[in-house]
Amino acid sequence: MAAAGTLPSAHRRPLLQPPPRALRAVVPRSSSSRGRRRPIAAAASAGSGSAAAAAAAGAAVGASTVLHPRKTDIRDANFPMDAEGRTYHLGTKRGEVANRILSVGSEKRALVLAEYLQPPAPGRGLFMLESSRGFLTITGRYLGTPVSIVVTHMGLANADFVVRENRAVVDGEMAFIRLGTCGALRPPARLGSFIVADPGAILIRRDPDAFSPEGEACGLPPYRFSRPIPSDPLLSQALQQEAARRLGAENVCSGLNATADSFYSSQGRRTDWFDDRNEALLGELLQAYPQAITLEMETAMLLDLARCSRGSIRAAAGVIALADRQSNDFLAADRIEELERLTGQACLAALARTQLQDSWGPHNGSGPPVWAA
Amino acid sequence: MAAAGTLPSAHRRPLLQPPPRALRAVVPRSSSSRGRRRPIAAAASAGSGSAAAAAAAGAAVGASTVLHPRKTDIRDANFPMDAEGRTYHLGTKRGEVANRILSVGSEKRALVLAEYLQPPAPGRGLFMLESSRGFLTITGRYLGTPVSIVVTHMGLANADFVVRENRAVVDGEMAFIRLGTCGALRPPARLGSFIVADPGAILIRRDPDAFSPEGEACGLPPYRFSRPIPSDPLLSQALQQEAARRLGAENVCSGLNATADSFYSSQGRRTDWFDDRNEALLGELLQAYPQAITLEMETAMLLDLARCSRGSIRAAAGVIALADRQSNDFLAADRIEELERLTGQACLAALARTQLQDSWGPHNGSGPPVWAA
Repeated sequence: MAAAGTLPSAHRRPLLQPPPRALRAVVPRSSSSRGRRRPIAAAASAGSGSAAAAAAAGAAVGASTVLHPRKTDIRDANFPMDAEGRTYHLGTKRGEVANRILSVGSEKRALVLAEYLQPPAPGRGLFMLESSRGFLTITGRYLGTPVSIVVTHMGLANADFVVRENRAVVDGEMAFIRLGTCGALRPPARLGSFIVADPGAILIRRDPDAFSPEGEACGLPPYRFSRPIPSDPLLSQALQQEAARRLGAENVCSGLNATADSFYSSQGRRTDWFDDRNEALLGELLQAYPQAITLEMETAMLLDLARCSRGSIRAAAGVIALADRQSNDFLAADRIEELERLTGQACLAALARTQLQDSWGPHNGSGPPVWAA
Repeated sequence: MAAAGTLPSAHRRPLLQPPPRALRAVVPRSSSSRGRRRPIAAAASAGSGSAAAAAAAGAAVGASTVLHPRKTDIRDANFPMDAEGRTYHLGTKRGEVANRILSVGSEKRALVLAEYLQPPAPGRGLFMLESSRGFLTITGRYLGTPVSIVVTHMGLANADFVVRENRAVVDGEMAFIRLGTCGALRPPARLGSFIVADPGAILIRRDPDAFSPEGEACGLPPYRFSRPIPSDPLLSQALQQEAARRLGAENVCSGLNATADSFYSSQGRRTDWFDDRNEALLGELLQAYPQAITLEMETAMLLDLARCSRGSIRAAAGVIALADRQSNDFLAADRIEELERLTGQACLAALARTQLQDSWGPHNGSGPPVWAA
């Protein structure tokens, strides 16, 4: 109904205080406990723009508050929205989300990357909204273009929520880039490299029927691989170029991703507690898809939804190799954040430079978007 | 390494302050912003125990702080844990999680139900820990028995994280009960009733291959139903009895649950943006499984993992019907919280009264559990 600057601002509620029963769209909170700004040296030195721009971005984070809309008057179990037009799980409505979306797995990563955004409109903080289900949406500008960072969390179901509920509140063409982490299966992917899912991803799924008496009797395979699902070639290429410029071409590559429906059994991880029958899984994967070089949990869903979006969504994904699945080594924590900052800027730049058939005007009568000047 | 009472306590960090780069296991925070206690009238009047016990439970919540462990020295990409033995996504270690676990979808629901827990040990607050991925674990006692409430969030992948990472830090037999919400497909499930997944659940999954050119050419079905996955009969029966005692038998029933791999397409929800080919899905489901009465997103994974747990996990699930998928009506918000409180107590009672082969002694040299007196 109104731009972010005119909405009551809200801070994060303390964890131990469940929300009051009274329902309202946005909960005003005191502004006495604003988060401290982080040093923005990394932003200034990372080559994404001028130090002044980086300083402005840091200031935008510092001036931001977080909205916490409440679910009110939910209607229509087919596609639940409240009376304001807010989606059921992400909680955003038309005008709060940009046509270009960076999807990340964790809140920490989203906040680190929000430091690189400028305010959506002059003199404002970033638009930030966290839903009752923990989905955080941050809208600002990168290279002058409205961009949203959305915390997707983990797994196929959450990727589905993020793509569908954002699609429902944005008009015109959309571009999604996922920035994630992965296990490296084989070269050229290696610990600490950034791998763009180009030509796309396959899906690995555990079949529960294989663990039923009937499935056992007929020897059903416990895991199945889907066919490759393509990513957007131009967006993938742009992402790889932007990443190579920041990380050096030797640290960036592309290849087929394998998205698993779990972190453990469907990625070949083995424990004694469960009968997972996955001893041969990674070998079978590499035999079926020798070009598969990364393992993670969300990309195939994003690409599948883009394929089924009737041409309305372009999607790409890049992942930082956090673990080496041959040596079982793990990347050091400080190196992870450095890579998140550099690859995050690459994702934002690729999104901002992508041409889309979008429109930033009033959104179906719901008022000007938060990035209206 | 130590019981909760001797660990540095930590409050939730403000949202806009990303964690410092320095790594440590637990972040101490000031205790100046503790959450206010909610009125505990509901606890006192709900018949779960004496008013004094309810008051003690409310006091336990008020005296609690939330630990936020940091990932340090992650090792072994096969099953990542840090040097302290904390799991990678949930962040808990041996002695912090009870053998009896109530799995809920949202933080709000977990905090509402934590009001019914007594302290894990005399004179302490509840044990509360939230991981960097947003998984909240609360350990206390119910009817004198150690119980953990774990926020699972949504979807199959998150249910997998919660079962596997808890199994990795608990010795002896375990019992899981999921308390969720669902859409009601047909009677006896109806808006506002509580339905126990007995005899179990099936899984509905979208097949991405059906949306590929090759899959289209050979007419692959876009959705597939698994065979039924059984729940634990005794735990399910105990849950139904406890629920009937609190809600009235006329508001409680049991039946086959259908767990879908997404909220939208695999539950027959239809929008114009995506080519989902799910117009006939609910009809086909009811034809294949006339006894299916509820639709949700996690139960089948919990039951499948219990089935594959080599006898170490007993699992049951009950869901509140929030939506009617025939009329598309939604339950009013105040009625939802009332049902959460009553059914949550039923779940806790069923867990506490279940006999398990567990041991509460020192846990493999990691010190006494948080519920040690």
